[in-house]
Amino acid sequence: MVYEFEVTTRQNMEFVDITHKANEMVSKSGMENGVCFIFVPHTTAAVTINENADPDVVFDMLKELNKIVPIEDQYRHMEGNSAAHIKASLMGFSEQVIVHNGKLKLGTWQGIYFTEFDGPRRRKVYVKVLKG
Amino acid sequence: MVYEFEVTTRQNMEFVDITHKANEMVSKSGMENGVCFIFVPHTTAAVTINENADPDVVFDMLKELNKIVPIEDQYRHMEGNSAAHIKASLMGFSEQVIVHNGKLKLGTWQGIYFTEFDGPRRRKVYVKVLKG
Amino acid sequence: MVYEFEVTTRQNMEFVDITHKANEMVSKSGMENGVCFIFVPHTTAAVTINENADPDVVFDMLKELNKIVPIEDQYRHMEGNSAAHIKASLMGFSEQVIVHNGKLKLGTWQGIYFTEFDGPRRRKVYVKVLKG
Repeated sequence: MVYEFEVTTRQNMEFVDITHKANEMVSKSGMENGVCFIFVPHTTAAVTINENADPDVVFDMLKELNKIVPIEDQYRHMEGNSAAHIKASLMGFSEQVIVHNGKLKLGTWQGIYFTEFDGPRRRKVYVKVLKG
Repeated sequence: MVYEFEVTTRQNMEFVDITHKANEMVSKSGMENGVCFIFVPHTTAAVTINENADPDVVFDMLKELNKIVPIEDQYRHMEGNSAAHIKASLMGFSEQVIVHNGKLKLGTWQGIYFTEFDGPRRRKVYVKVLKG
Repeated sequence: MVYEFEVTTRQNMEFVDITHKANEMVSKSGMENGVCFIFVPHTTAAVTINENADPDVVFDMLKELNKIVPIEDQYRHMEGNSAAHIKASLMGFSEQVIVHNGKLKLGTWQGIYFTEFDGPRRRKVYVKVLKG
């Protein structure tokens, strides 16, 4: 089984906490132990893990990512979203989290974030759990 | 079974689309459902996912990666390829893609790219499929 | 089974080679073939793969990462470690390595590094092996 859910982003760049959705898919799968794969099937959005407590962390991450990869930088790609493509590759398109006793074994401060770099849009996330 | 194939790069920095090779290995494995691991066993080349339609996206990614991590930057490492080591870690050494009905479940615009940062060279890629 | 071990870092920023620890966990698991997941349950430390021969590579990587994401950059997050959060997301929180004949199938020059960005501290690493 591959599970799928939608994320509706509301900003051009935005981190959306999807930890609860990922845990929901793990519950649906009925798997008690294994590894959960969270995969983003896009090229201008990605997924990362980071702090889920102080929203300023996400604010700083987005601001700094814009300094590292400026939105305008004489890119060739006509659609004008090259910066989003690069940021997505820097974050990566999947996260792998161990499943233990039916739950994602994340650290205390870890949340899973869908990272939108070319929104707002409706996006998809795939989730798969392998038993073991 | 671990599958292996070679990539011959022709430039110092180059993204080579290996999506068809990865799908070929999935077919060989005979696995209908699971997760495919694409692993690059090098330290100055890596793997990422990105747009497979407009080649300007890859052009912009390479140019911008050179701005983020300049090829010359008073590095200590005598071999002169420190920038390649750093870029490889930024892209990452593996991709994980869900296998569904015998095929990689990629997004419409997604391709898997072998990312050469210290070519031209002959390189290897490992592929493994876990069933589930 | 989920395996766990501790890493004690001694610097604010430091790469600690954990390849032997990961191989030790693979041995403990008794798995001959599959995939090993190395997961860091923190938000200011991460994991990457890179060269295990010349220590200057790690020196250059740390110096360059500080240029890409400066430690001070008018961040909002009051704890003062936003740069560490960003660097951790750039490196990523997991590595996946194929297990073949009871060993991690790494490339000749590859080592697995715990990447500390907000030390010194006592940290944890989770290891899980899926058979297949």
